[in-house]
Amino acid sequence: MIRKLAVIGVGLIGGSLARALRKAGEVREIVGCGRGKANLEKALELGVIDSYTHDIGEAVEGADMVFLAVPLGAMKDAFAAMKGHLAEDAVITDGGSSKASVVADAEAAFGELPSNLVPGHPIAGTERNGVEASFAELYEDRRVILTPTETTVPEATARVRAMWEACGAEVSEMSVEHHDEVLAATSHLPHMLAFGLVDALARMKENDEIFRYAAGGFRDFTRIASSNPIMWRDVCVANGPALSRMLSAFAEEMNELAQTIAAGDGDHLLEVFSRAKEARDRYVDGLQTEQSSE
Amino acid sequence: MIRKLAVIGVGLIGGSLARALRKAGEVREIVGCGRGKANLEKALELGVIDSYTHDIGEAVEGADMVFLAVPLGAMKDAFAAMKGHLAEDAVITDGGSSKASVVADAEAAFGELPSNLVPGHPIAGTERNGVEASFAELYEDRRVILTPTETTVPEATARVRAMWEACGAEVSEMSVEHHDEVLAATSHLPHMLAFGLVDALARMKENDEIFRYAAGGFRDFTRIASSNPIMWRDVCVANGPALSRMLSAFAEEMNELAQTIAAGDGDHLLEVFSRAKEARDRYVDGLQTEQSSE
Repeated sequence: MIRKLAVIGVGLIGGSLARALRKAGEVREIVGCGRGKANLEKALELGVIDSYTHDIGEAVEGADMVFLAVPLGAMKDAFAAMKGHLAEDAVITDGGSSKASVVADAEAAFGELPSNLVPGHPIAGTERNGVEASFAELYEDRRVILTPTETTVPEATARVRAMWEACGAEVSEMSVEHHDEVLAATSHLPHMLAFGLVDALARMKENDEIFRYAAGGFRDFTRIASSNPIMWRDVCVANGPALSRMLSAFAEEMNELAQTIAAGDGDHLLEVFSRAKEARDRYVDGLQTEQSSE
Repeated sequence: MIRKLAVIGVGLIGGSLARALRKAGEVREIVGCGRGKANLEKALELGVIDSYTHDIGEAVEGADMVFLAVPLGAMKDAFAAMKGHLAEDAVITDGGSSKASVVADAEAAFGELPSNLVPGHPIAGTERNGVEASFAELYEDRRVILTPTETTVPEATARVRAMWEACGAEVSEMSVEHHDEVLAATSHLPHMLAFGLVDALARMKENDEIFRYAAGGFRDFTRIASSNPIMWRDVCVANGPALSRMLSAFAEEMNELAQTIAAGDGDHLLEVFSRAKEARDRYVDGLQTEQSSE
């Protein structure tokens, strides 16, 4: 049971954690913290939080669990603001989708890597933002990756794990570096392609007509291009090295594919497409086994 | 009212046209043609067709409407097989997603461009194949592009337009070249990126783990990578010049984006992502206005 949960950033991610823990009966008190008054008032009205403040130091006072759900670009200031205000038994975790930058920000803000910091990343979300988009079931059957550092004490990791498991999530642990590589491949790179494609088409002349003839596949393919641009700018800056490397490598592969197409090498194309279809079908089968839904 | 419809290739596309026209009461007799006996037997059993043959010449005998729904790579042989068997009032149309190659194939097979050929492309489909995946509503509120050639007689175009409108589709006309450019941008290029991305991840070591941590956005983004590899090989070969040019240009843009990310140029990233999100949201709003669904 969490005595007092401080949610820094009460949007989809933070609000859903609060709702899930409340629903599970695993939290006594929830204080929200953020900059926008309207959003926090809404969170209060919806019963997502019990009170709020705009001051991070005040929010974390007496909290045994602090959850940071702010954009990656705001992490360092948030850590700095809580310094000196944390309870003795406080555990700090976050929901950022890049972990090396969060660890570096914490080290810079605290002067050393706190032993009660458990960097984390719930692999969940929608394209919607704000507390009104949050719901208690967001993390059910979703994966949460924790990346405890060398200085993280095991008890802190155990408490964060228990919190996510209470929300119905499946928790794994891996290194910061490995997390950032995996996410660059499966999330950051696809977002770059979707943003890039939609932007390229939008810049074409007659772009209205082009979009008009886009089929349903296009809608699915580009759904992630409706994601929050500020969040994604921060992800790119935070996970820059891994992501730029991967994007360059992928661009090179697409250049080779373009040459294969220009050369009319049908056998090679069939090989690539078949391998991709097989992997994609296997991946979806795996999901269906786990979640009984496509 | 169509007297006799010959559907060459009774899968999702051909089967759905047959079902839709039957449902609309706009066709008297439907003959199916294909290579696989099991699929045609199934089509017969489901009432999608009234009879079938494996011989294209036989299928088109007496048909006033011939619909070709075979892979692009099989078009030329199909045209050649119907030569000399067509009724005097026959109109030929197709569902291929690249039009220049279909026109070239018809010209090669018939020795000249037939005046009763109306190349067409219904912008509809799912990742499923075969007559069992077909359904009468597939084309409702979908766009169908017709690309009549210089030799196409207007009456033939009018009859194909009426056929698609009877299925609930919205019909537009454009040039062959323009169609191929628009489709390269909105369909063929996204398919290359999705196939390419899934293939790239599948070839990484520890790829099972990578797929395990893929979020919901990845599932949507890569859905089209589950499409039929043979069909897509044919599309690439058929629309090779336009597609390879576009894919190379896009790869170059992704290389530039990688450099922007490596340089940590957040302002530029925010600009690209914001422009993309705005275009994507506008596109979906447009769809919702038209179809009242996202």
